[in-house]
Amino acid sequence: MADAPPSGRITLAHGNGGRLMRGLIADVFAAHLAAPVENDAAFVTMPAAEIAITTDGFTVEPLIFPGGDLGSLAVNGTVNDLAVAGAIPRHLTLAAFLEEGLEIAVLDRLVASAAAAARAAGVSVVAGDTKVLPRGECGGAYFAVTGIGTRRAGPRLGFAGIQPGDRVIVSGPVGDHGTAVMLAREEFGLSGDLRSDCASVLPLAESAGAVADLRFMRDPTRGGLATVAHEIAAATGFGVRLREASIPLRDPVLGVCEALGYDPLYLACEGRIVAVASPAGAAEILARWRGTEAGASAAIIGEIGRGEPLVVLETALGGERILDELEDEPLPRIC
Amino acid sequence: MADAPPSGRITLAHGNGGRLMRGLIADVFAAHLAAPVENDAAFVTMPAAEIAITTDGFTVEPLIFPGGDLGSLAVNGTVNDLAVAGAIPRHLTLAAFLEEGLEIAVLDRLVASAAAAARAAGVSVVAGDTKVLPRGECGGAYFAVTGIGTRRAGPRLGFAGIQPGDRVIVSGPVGDHGTAVMLAREEFGLSGDLRSDCASVLPLAESAGAVADLRFMRDPTRGGLATVAHEIAAATGFGVRLREASIPLRDPVLGVCEALGYDPLYLACEGRIVAVASPAGAAEILARWRGTEAGASAAIIGEIGRGEPLVVLETALGGERILDELEDEPLPRIC
Repeated sequence: MADAPPSGRITLAHGNGGRLMRGLIADVFAAHLAAPVENDAAFVTMPAAEIAITTDGFTVEPLIFPGGDLGSLAVNGTVNDLAVAGAIPRHLTLAAFLEEGLEIAVLDRLVASAAAAARAAGVSVVAGDTKVLPRGECGGAYFAVTGIGTRRAGPRLGFAGIQPGDRVIVSGPVGDHGTAVMLAREEFGLSGDLRSDCASVLPLAESAGAVADLRFMRDPTRGGLATVAHEIAAATGFGVRLREASIPLRDPVLGVCEALGYDPLYLACEGRIVAVASPAGAAEILARWRGTEAGASAAIIGEIGRGEPLVVLETALGGERILDELEDEPLPRIC
Repeated sequence: MADAPPSGRITLAHGNGGRLMRGLIADVFAAHLAAPVENDAAFVTMPAAEIAITTDGFTVEPLIFPGGDLGSLAVNGTVNDLAVAGAIPRHLTLAAFLEEGLEIAVLDRLVASAAAAARAAGVSVVAGDTKVLPRGECGGAYFAVTGIGTRRAGPRLGFAGIQPGDRVIVSGPVGDHGTAVMLAREEFGLSGDLRSDCASVLPLAESAGAVADLRFMRDPTRGGLATVAHEIAAATGFGVRLREASIPLRDPVLGVCEALGYDPLYLACEGRIVAVASPAGAAEILARWRGTEAGASAAIIGEIGRGEPLVVLETALGGERILDELEDEPLPRIC
């Protein structure tokens, strides 16, 4: 790894397959990720025949925000998709779309951050690709990350196991990532100590995954907690009741959302889990999560009902409000 | 699958996680690909513990060109990376970055084309993701595809086995994809029957992969044949001598390159293989390939030498020319 980040900017020639591209791969990608560059495909040995696989495209503006950046977001997002599906993440691939003019020092930081997140989650980035897009055609950089893993021991997870009476649990405050990125991007004149919650949820998922009555987990990214609740309602045909007063929410997140007119229940988290479990299972998961730093604010926030497949919020004032599915609201591009 | 392609255009709300995104996934992606949409990760069972994995980002302008489109290009490109590495492709993932304003009927065609290419190669698309980018930030659509496969029986392939005296073989004419896309994009006033060679090379790779003295295969995409030759020279420390008169090249490709000042040896192919094998192995591969429609123009085009690690072209007129590595030429964005 170089002592100083490489200087200069991405040019179209960094994408032509020749000398500049070879140098970029060696100086930036291989330096941090130690990915093999000889072959078009890498060979890895998996410890089980059943493989979990997930892919995600990542785009965020700004590329670097309080609490994370495109690199950590992309790796953690992929690790988290595997973790909540009941898998142990093993290997990742990274396809980078880079805009002409991007500072190579910024790219270096993104890749270093991706590498650090991968190390923290115990995964290796084994294959990659770089494409360069003409100036003006890309928001600086997009990453597409694919992850493969193996099934973790524990209950099979999915919508099918969800039953009326089950509890809904969230591992921590919601909306931090969404509001932190909005504030970092826009000139709202607001500031504060808002940070993205961008992190691996793997330890939380492993901890919950050992509880027999766990039914389902999901990381509430795009569309937030309310959208996960809608997916549960649509897939199961059961209603989901959430209690506003129980949903952990940081004061600065609430303040920003009130000022800007956003509902934090629809904003992305990047380091939280929404889980569904039996009442006893939920209590056990809550106890396990609360004993960790990442899960210190975990809470049981609602339950699965027998009624229509609607998402109902019991408001703090004692009323009820239906949380609609997102329609044509173009939420800020934050994940 | 719907009888008529969906109408309308991509909006930012198609990326917000809500109703429109759910509809787009159901009507376009799931309709063609039959990918599971319930989970963040798919589980697949692999028949061997050693897994080949590759990822690639795809961007092409125009999105649809003679002989292919972004969808077939992305699937075939990923299948081909696995095939030339000595793997049997099994499963793919597709992460799509879509520009606001993209016609949904165009997206439908791209996804249908990706699905057809996947079926032809015997692979399934098991996981996907969609992100929407603001208008003006994307060339319509970018696809990132990751493929996993298992090792094919046969010799281990790689630069390490390449020896002086080995022959270089190409499975068909070079430069078709590069020139076809250039013509489709630019207003050159040129026309003709140029078509991209975009196709799966899996049958050719399997056929060559059964030959004991096969050392190495690569699909000469970005940077073309000359860039593969450079990679061989750089990795092995041996020289590569190519005979211009032996390199298959279609007349219209040559004509367009002469008119526009491009060297076809640096232009992308998307359905060819460059292979290195012992003289006897090369003869056997040539015989196998020539017996197929895709390999009818296959040729032994050069050999590995003991000299400096340069790429030398013996010209048709009897001279010699060093083929330099691509420097800062921003070749057209065609793969």
